[in-house]
Amino acid sequence: MNMDALPGHKLVLDAPLPLDCGVELEPVTVAYQTYGTLNADRSNAILICHALTGDQFVADRHPITGKPGWWQAMVGPGKVFDTDRYFLICSNVLGGCMGTTGPADLNPATGKAWGLDFPVITIGDMVRAQVRLIDHLGIAKLFCVAGGSMGGMQVLEWAARYPSRMRACVPVATAARHSAQNIAFHEVGRQAITADPEWRDGAYANADTRPQRGLAVARMAAHITYLSEAALHRKFGRNLQRGSLTFGFDADFQVESYLRHQGISFTERFDANSYLYITRAMDYFDLAADHGGALAHAFTGTRVHFCVISFSSDWLFPTSESRAVVKALNSVAANVSFVEVDSDKGHDAFLLDEPEFHATVKGFLAGVESAT
Amino acid sequence: MNMDALPGHKLVLDAPLPLDCGVELEPVTVAYQTYGTLNADRSNAILICHALTGDQFVADRHPITGKPGWWQAMVGPGKVFDTDRYFLICSNVLGGCMGTTGPADLNPATGKAWGLDFPVITIGDMVRAQVRLIDHLGIAKLFCVAGGSMGGMQVLEWAARYPSRMRACVPVATAARHSAQNIAFHEVGRQAITADPEWRDGAYANADTRPQRGLAVARMAAHITYLSEAALHRKFGRNLQRGSLTFGFDADFQVESYLRHQGISFTERFDANSYLYITRAMDYFDLAADHGGALAHAFTGTRVHFCVISFSSDWLFPTSESRAVVKALNSVAANVSFVEVDSDKGHDAFLLDEPEFHATVKGFLAGVESAT
Repeated sequence: MNMDALPGHKLVLDAPLPLDCGVELEPVTVAYQTYGTLNADRSNAILICHALTGDQFVADRHPITGKPGWWQAMVGPGKVFDTDRYFLICSNVLGGCMGTTGPADLNPATGKAWGLDFPVITIGDMVRAQVRLIDHLGIAKLFCVAGGSMGGMQVLEWAARYPSRMRACVPVATAARHSAQNIAFHEVGRQAITADPEWRDGAYANADTRPQRGLAVARMAAHITYLSEAALHRKFGRNLQRGSLTFGFDADFQVESYLRHQGISFTERFDANSYLYITRAMDYFDLAADHGGALAHAFTGTRVHFCVISFSSDWLFPTSESRAVVKALNSVAANVSFVEVDSDKGHDAFLLDEPEFHATVKGFLAGVESAT
Repeated sequence: MNMDALPGHKLVLDAPLPLDCGVELEPVTVAYQTYGTLNADRSNAILICHALTGDQFVADRHPITGKPGWWQAMVGPGKVFDTDRYFLICSNVLGGCMGTTGPADLNPATGKAWGLDFPVITIGDMVRAQVRLIDHLGIAKLFCVAGGSMGGMQVLEWAARYPSRMRACVPVATAARHSAQNIAFHEVGRQAITADPEWRDGAYANADTRPQRGLAVARMAAHITYLSEAALHRKFGRNLQRGSLTFGFDADFQVESYLRHQGISFTERFDANSYLYITRAMDYFDLAADHGGALAHAFTGTRVHFCVISFSSDWLFPTSESRAVVKALNSVAANVSFVEVDSDKGHDAFLLDEPEFHATVKGFLAGVESAT
């Protein structure tokens, strides 16, 4: 779609954004959505951080797919993130493709799409852009920063770099560093994209084409990692599309058909170069390395309230990663709650209707309010 | 390489091979290797079945890669499969690309490579070709049939269909049916291959090209599933190729470089269409479905000695799959040993130097010999 016609808010930053790679990026636009009303003392704002393929449309119909928002189960009147009570903000990440500046946008130096000339960005850079947005909104201190998966990485980055700007945070199904296995899966996705001749060294926009097939393969591989073996078995097992095997290469099994659909539909809403840049940002994330090699140093003296949540069947961001964060927080005597939610839905559980998860976050937010 | 120059034995079947899809395939060549000497009463033969990307070069230098045989750790004088004692046979599977008839061979009807006109084959078809080979060698009863992963599927198929032709079997790191998650990973690999324009609807041989990039991506995705998260972490962690991050898309992390190498080197020895056909055969494998819906029915009345082995960190063929086989065997009062070997090396453990695994198989074979 034409990004100028995208619903929602846009902030054009009034100064270049310094990036971890050394570049001063400009111009930078931050596209964002808000839900609920900011109260008079500006104390009820919650920043939601989205995951790799998420965006700012947390709780309303997606302008391209027409589907409900990705955290509609969590966000709304009377819900966990209660829009009658809180002012919710979610911005598309830097490098993204839903209105915030990314590789599909015009490079002012050439008048063409950035493509691979776009600087490699980090989770820290994404958060730096969000800080500018929060400044612009006149919010000195967020009530909470929350997000799952890559969103959780941003939450941890916020807590480490800007602890005075927040009272509480909820990192969900995430890690303080991307594991070797996760880097490996991302690299498969990137190779699938760059192997597509239509990728054209990243300059596909200039040739008016797109590496759809490569991006679909990347999405298919990633999608498997978002689910658990048990969830795939329950959902599909070895169920056939038709009554019997066809002895061919069409989608005989329902799981094949499902994956193909996931791959193809993803390409309708996502930019291949954004996929490269955002996966790279996740790979680079290593909070301990950024703080002298010890994760605890990232949180020394913190007064932020933490609610760390993992899911028992999540093998992409397993509970052991959350435990490492909790251990670091405990070693600096932080205020931390930790819940491993029992679920067989895999990593995607953070997006789904998981009553124990929802009740935990709701209780935590109420607790932080009353702890004033 | 030119397959006519391939070292080792070749058997051209003297009659068409009936396939599960209904086709009578001809001509069919079976390429195989042997190790050790068949004894006078032809009672010391062991058939080794190879995995998806393995071949008949179990215990000698590979003619293309120059690397040691894939089960060199297990096969040789004094080793588990002791070539001073046993006569070992391993044939390239039907559909393969190391001398046995597959999609890269000439279709006699057209004089061109089969490509996608090659019939879709099954594990049962692979075994049927092996039975012909064993007949040809004049072996009425094998001492043992052994193999890991897809090799283990063939072992189970042998035990179910031809129990009178074997005394013992060793299915390792395998399953009686391919799971939804495994079908999903295979489908990603197939999509990566068929998305490569050089695949040309399977007719790449006629165009003198090959879908190398697609096949490399398929291999990379699969390779991750062969390892455990712990093995990847121990081997690579977040170690960098150079001293620091480059803020680019070159292989910054050692795990990326390793995966890329795995992908590229695989394309030098493997045919993309063979990869499609063999993964399909694995997806189709469902021993219970082939025997009236109950796995136990596959083994009713069996007198074969079974030694079922799994590895604790194998998430591709987890121990639960082996347990399902053992449960079925127990329900028909079969003679079955079951060992879950404690290892953090993932699925690939079956190819590696795992002392507990090796000792188990060695002891089992001795036990079967003395049980005469």
